[in-house]
Amino acid sequence: MHKLMVLYPEPADRAAFIDYYTSTHLPKVAKLPGLQSWSYALDVAGGPEGSAPYFAVFEAEFADAQSFAAAMASPEGQEVAQDVPNYASGGAITLDFSPTGSSAS
Amino acid sequence: MHKLMVLYPEPADRAAFIDYYTSTHLPKVAKLPGLQSWSYALDVAGGPEGSAPYFAVFEAEFADAQSFAAAMASPEGQEVAQDVPNYASGGAITLDFSPTGSSAS
Repeated sequence: MHKLMVLYPEPADRAAFIDYYTSTHLPKVAKLPGLQSWSYALDVAGGPEGSAPYFAVFEAEFADAQSFAAAMASPEGQEVAQDVPNYASGGAITLDFSPTGSSAS
Repeated sequence: MHKLMVLYPEPADRAAFIDYYTSTHLPKVAKLPGLQSWSYALDVAGGPEGSAPYFAVFEAEFADAQSFAAAMASPEGQEVAQDVPNYASGGAITLDFSPTGSSAS
C-alpha cells in the first residue's frame, strides 16, 4: 500500500478553504484513478508541544507506488494538483510513502 | 475513529534513529491501551515542492478521542511520550484528529 498525505498550514481564510475544499477539491480527488480510500480532517489538534502547525490533513491510499505515480500523472491527477493553489492560501506539504503496519489484536 | 500522527524531521543520526525506533520505541507503542492499529514509514518522499520536510511518519488509530486521551494518560502512554527524546534528535510533531473518509468503490 502506498499513501499520499497532504498537510495544510492555517489558511488566510479558514471558511473559504473549507467551502472550496469540500465542494470543489474533494470531488476532483475522488476521480483519481486507482484511489482506494481517502480521508481528511479539518480539526487537527496539536500534541504536548502546543498547537498543531497544520490546520488540516488529507490522506489517500493506493495499491502501490506505481499506482500512485500513475494517478498523479493522469489528467485527473494534474487537475487535482493544479487546483491546490485555488484554496490552500497557507500552502500545502505533500508526502508519500509505503507504510509498514500492524493491527493490534 | 481518532488518529494520532507523528511527523519526524531528519534526525542527527538516521541509523541510530531507525535502530532505536524499531527495537525499543515501537514495542512500547504496541502496548498502548486501546490501540487499534499502527503504521510507520521511514522512506518518506516529498511532493512537487521538493524533498519532504519529514524523514519518518507514524500513525495510530483509536476508537475515538476519549480512547486516545485515555491511552496517552495511561502509564504506557506516558512511557511512550517520555521515550521520544531518546531517538528523535530532529524533533517530533504530534497531531491528532478524527478523520472523515471514504472508500473508493
